[in-house]
Amino acid sequence: MAGYKRYRKDSPVSYALGITLTFELLRFQPDKVTRVYIHSGMKEGETLDKLRSLCRDAGIEMVQTDKIFHVLSQKENCYVIGEFTKYEGQLEKTASHIVLVNPSNAGNMGTIMRSALGFGLNQMAIIRPAVDAFDPKVVRASMGAIFSTNFVYFEDFDEYQAQFGERELFPFMLDAKKSLHEIRPQGTFSLLFGNEATGLPDRFAQIGTSVIIPHSNRIDSLNLPIAASIAMYETTKQQFES
Amino acid sequence: MAGYKRYRKDSPVSYALGITLTFELLRFQPDKVTRVYIHSGMKEGETLDKLRSLCRDAGIEMVQTDKIFHVLSQKENCYVIGEFTKYEGQLEKTASHIVLVNPSNAGNMGTIMRSALGFGLNQMAIIRPAVDAFDPKVVRASMGAIFSTNFVYFEDFDEYQAQFGERELFPFMLDAKKSLHEIRPQGTFSLLFGNEATGLPDRFAQIGTSVIIPHSNRIDSLNLPIAASIAMYETTKQQFES
Repeated sequence: MAGYKRYRKDSPVSYALGITLTFELLRFQPDKVTRVYIHSGMKEGETLDKLRSLCRDAGIEMVQTDKIFHVLSQKENCYVIGEFTKYEGQLEKTASHIVLVNPSNAGNMGTIMRSALGFGLNQMAIIRPAVDAFDPKVVRASMGAIFSTNFVYFEDFDEYQAQFGERELFPFMLDAKKSLHEIRPQGTFSLLFGNEATGLPDRFAQIGTSVIIPHSNRIDSLNLPIAASIAMYETTKQQFES
Repeated sequence: MAGYKRYRKDSPVSYALGITLTFELLRFQPDKVTRVYIHSGMKEGETLDKLRSLCRDAGIEMVQTDKIFHVLSQKENCYVIGEFTKYEGQLEKTASHIVLVNPSNAGNMGTIMRSALGFGLNQMAIIRPAVDAFDPKVVRASMGAIFSTNFVYFEDFDEYQAQFGERELFPFMLDAKKSLHEIRPQGTFSLLFGNEATGLPDRFAQIGTSVIIPHSNRIDSLNLPIAASIAMYETTKQQFES
């Protein structure tokens, strides 16, 4: 216990930094929580009482220490850290998916998880090489949505396609067959997005129906979480019509 | 010249950090460029030749120095900085606008400018208190879109409304009259977005037609650049239909 270490990709645990994220963790993945750390700057009051009560009910150890905060958090107002064991998700054949091919930015991945949960698309396939979804930066950017997201890593797209290819596949790329306005997914579908810098490889133009989000030639492309969110909005909006 | 200072809001100049941003600056605001700084790590070659030629044609001084890079840039691979005089934009009555009410995050503002340029909405009103649009963080997040964006600050929303209120106003808020799917702006319009943490004040529900982007109750809200980009996509997409 003496030496706390920086988060590493191969560590068996990860962390929710801050009280809000820790509450999300306790709410949606209580079985995975291994410990909750409290900083000496955390004030007594209703919030801490509520946290104590949740931890007691779930049998989770609370540890008072400032050391781990120096190692894990650069933010001044982080007084609670939730430690949790990493876990494996599972994708459903009957659910629509987001497929991130070689995503490289942790903040973007978290932001996409948050939007995806908002649009009811909380099943995510991640094709390697890819950023580590349990990186605390992903957890933070997701604002806790990661704890309600089923995500699974695949070694390559072929592995994903072998398991889940019998559905409508929509790779998003600049050189595409259809514009986003034109597609109306009927059944179960997957929205495919490439790497931030390089997009999807050309061969994805031969997979399913390639789609572009039309925009002016004044910008090269939309940023990844924005493109993914617009795509999710457009393909799910009939569900939200009142 | 001896002491370079960190960027400040009240400084008369700001900076484009990096070669790509500096090319965007030289392309879209050549008259505003006061100086271009070159780091000793910048390699000779086509890119530097092109930069030299652009600066020579525009009568812009190039300065070889590493000092300003230590002060302004944390990135390792930043070898060029474009310095420019801040300038005032102008909004057109006949153009649709983005209105940011009390935006507080520089990265978000730049990301919104990039999307807005992509959707042909590069006129932006910014209601104080607000982040400084010329902050190099905004410039960077905009990926240069700021140099093609007309933005104007207003002391309060009333000042904006007095000048531009005779158009369709769409305040985006969670407690809204219409969902985004239902609105079809016919003429000139403005899309209004509130602060990242607090959204638009309640009184905006009485202004124009308030709009919500429907999403599940699993998230509190979409993040600001994403909400703004979805709104821009939906309200301009007929223009991009082929």
